[in-house]
Amino acid sequence: MKQKITLKKIAKEFGVSISTVSKALKDSPEISLEVKERIQAFAEYYHYKPNSLALNLRNQKTKTIGVIIPEIVHHFFTKVITGIEKLANDKGYNVMICVSNESYEKEVLNMEMLANGVVDGIIASVSKETEEKDDYRHFNELINNGIPLVMFDRVVDQINCNKVIADDKGGAFLAAEQLLKNGCSKIALITTPDYVTVGHERKEGYVKALTENNIEINNDLIIEVDDKLSIEEQVSSLFKGDFVPDGIFAVNEIYAATVMTVARSFGYHVPDDIEVIGFTDGVISEFTTPSLSTVAQHGRTMGQKALELLLDEIDSQDVQYQHKTHIIKTDLKIRNSTKKVQFHN
Amino acid sequence: MKQKITLKKIAKEFGVSISTVSKALKDSPEISLEVKERIQAFAEYYHYKPNSLALNLRNQKTKTIGVIIPEIVHHFFTKVITGIEKLANDKGYNVMICVSNESYEKEVLNMEMLANGVVDGIIASVSKETEEKDDYRHFNELINNGIPLVMFDRVVDQINCNKVIADDKGGAFLAAEQLLKNGCSKIALITTPDYVTVGHERKEGYVKALTENNIEINNDLIIEVDDKLSIEEQVSSLFKGDFVPDGIFAVNEIYAATVMTVARSFGYHVPDDIEVIGFTDGVISEFTTPSLSTVAQHGRTMGQKALELLLDEIDSQDVQYQHKTHIIKTDLKIRNSTKKVQFHN
Repeated sequence: MKQKITLKKIAKEFGVSISTVSKALKDSPEISLEVKERIQAFAEYYHYKPNSLALNLRNQKTKTIGVIIPEIVHHFFTKVITGIEKLANDKGYNVMICVSNESYEKEVLNMEMLANGVVDGIIASVSKETEEKDDYRHFNELINNGIPLVMFDRVVDQINCNKVIADDKGGAFLAAEQLLKNGCSKIALITTPDYVTVGHERKEGYVKALTENNIEINNDLIIEVDDKLSIEEQVSSLFKGDFVPDGIFAVNEIYAATVMTVARSFGYHVPDDIEVIGFTDGVISEFTTPSLSTVAQHGRTMGQKALELLLDEIDSQDVQYQHKTHIIKTDLKIRNSTKKVQFHN
Repeated sequence: MKQKITLKKIAKEFGVSISTVSKALKDSPEISLEVKERIQAFAEYYHYKPNSLALNLRNQKTKTIGVIIPEIVHHFFTKVITGIEKLANDKGYNVMICVSNESYEKEVLNMEMLANGVVDGIIASVSKETEEKDDYRHFNELINNGIPLVMFDRVVDQINCNKVIADDKGGAFLAAEQLLKNGCSKIALITTPDYVTVGHERKEGYVKALTENNIEINNDLIIEVDDKLSIEEQVSSLFKGDFVPDGIFAVNEIYAATVMTVARSFGYHVPDDIEVIGFTDGVISEFTTPSLSTVAQHGRTMGQKALELLLDEIDSQDVQYQHKTHIIKTDLKIRNSTKKVQFHN
């Protein structure tokens, strides 16, 4: 059996973009005759049929939604899916989930598979590798093929589609401000590499809170965690120098739970010596000791909103459809990793 | 647009099984002429085409595997998926995941959607509602349509397919035996309702360990948790009577983490007063205080094995293909919720 051929494989073969292949196969005047002929001959040889099956199905609603998430062992993403599933059930839609596993290559493959006549629309959160490569042509290809797309959480400015994001910056600002109010002055940040948009946004919120309170940003107190290495080792540098933090804001709950364990191993007590606030409010936060104060991210609401926007676009007859970015408010859930401070006016 | 019609909807309309509809549409002599004519007329009216698109695609490999899991906010199931994804990547297969959300109805819909020409085979774990209804006709329908199926974790005896299960009984036996060795004599069991096969199996392991050690089973120490009610309230009965346990085996990590919190609220210390062992070794176990000793279930290995068996059947040319049940060994991971007892020979 010949290998199944896809737009992507043809693009690779000729070293051109997927969009060029698509245009060549549609005999677009934008593409040179020579390139068109070579691509068309190749596609014919491999029995690639862009206009048959996929496009037949395209006119028919499948009542199925595709979702692409970067990771599956991740409470936030699974919460978003429960929100999508809930509304999908109510509206009579099925949901198919694919995992990019933070890989650009898999994200493109997942998208191609879902778009190939199976789904009416796609909800996606971008993989870290895609953000690092800064290559989003597959998303544009999808949109050019008339398949509605909603991006959530990790979204991309240059793609024109509906988007749902958490108020990452606002949530981080709340967390850092709470630590300041509680009396902390040496506040560390445990975050992702800066190309991860949510990490970038949360760092901005942290910087804003400190700056507004006239506290200088100290880069020794900012750790950008590389998930491929030991988190324990990376955060333990905070406790080795002379300038040990009295407050820590971590941009996800694994970082927060881990730093509490590491702080304890260095003899520090949370929250008496060091107060900690996490982000997400996932499944771990309530089972740590002390239980974790955290920014709550409302993944379920985000999922529901994403599907709402997707169905809105699927059902829209408007050729001038205007895309929206919906921001889900974040708020603080105070548990026991911060001090119970009484504020007076 | 007419509503999309499916085997299931036709079956419902006529109050017959999906398999009867399938046979009627294939003009099987097993079905009476009258029933066949009525079903065929109905299918024709709704443009149902069992032999066209789906069967066309059926002859073509899609290089895609469907996975149906009962819950998505569940570390064990997501671990199984990472195992499936890993091997699928290596073998050039894509994976589509659907969630039944513990609903029989959704499980049937998911299966119908995946089977409808999209996937080469399905890996599934049965929903609790399906186990409760004890109705597995949709699985047989799938198999009758020539689509290979592998069941994992929650499997069904009467379905003839490849299966992968954890050694639930053996793992539970190990856990209860460890508590006995450590000196516990009043060992409680926190489990699921008995119709959930894994709960049933784990209870059997617990009963076996106690019985072999001449300890009578005390039903006051066995709690079958109803997940729709508060777990805290249900397990707190253990600490209210005169016969408080000195050891607790919980069949999953949420039950185990919760019972530790509740025991502490009653003034008991884990592990000094009460030792606790959980099951699964999910994401919570290492972040509880004390960290949780647990039976490790090796979800990732289970996922890899399930896909291995599925691909084996997909690639097999053998008409006499023999199905296998593969058992994944479980073992104990001792952390700090049990005492460190030194054993001497």
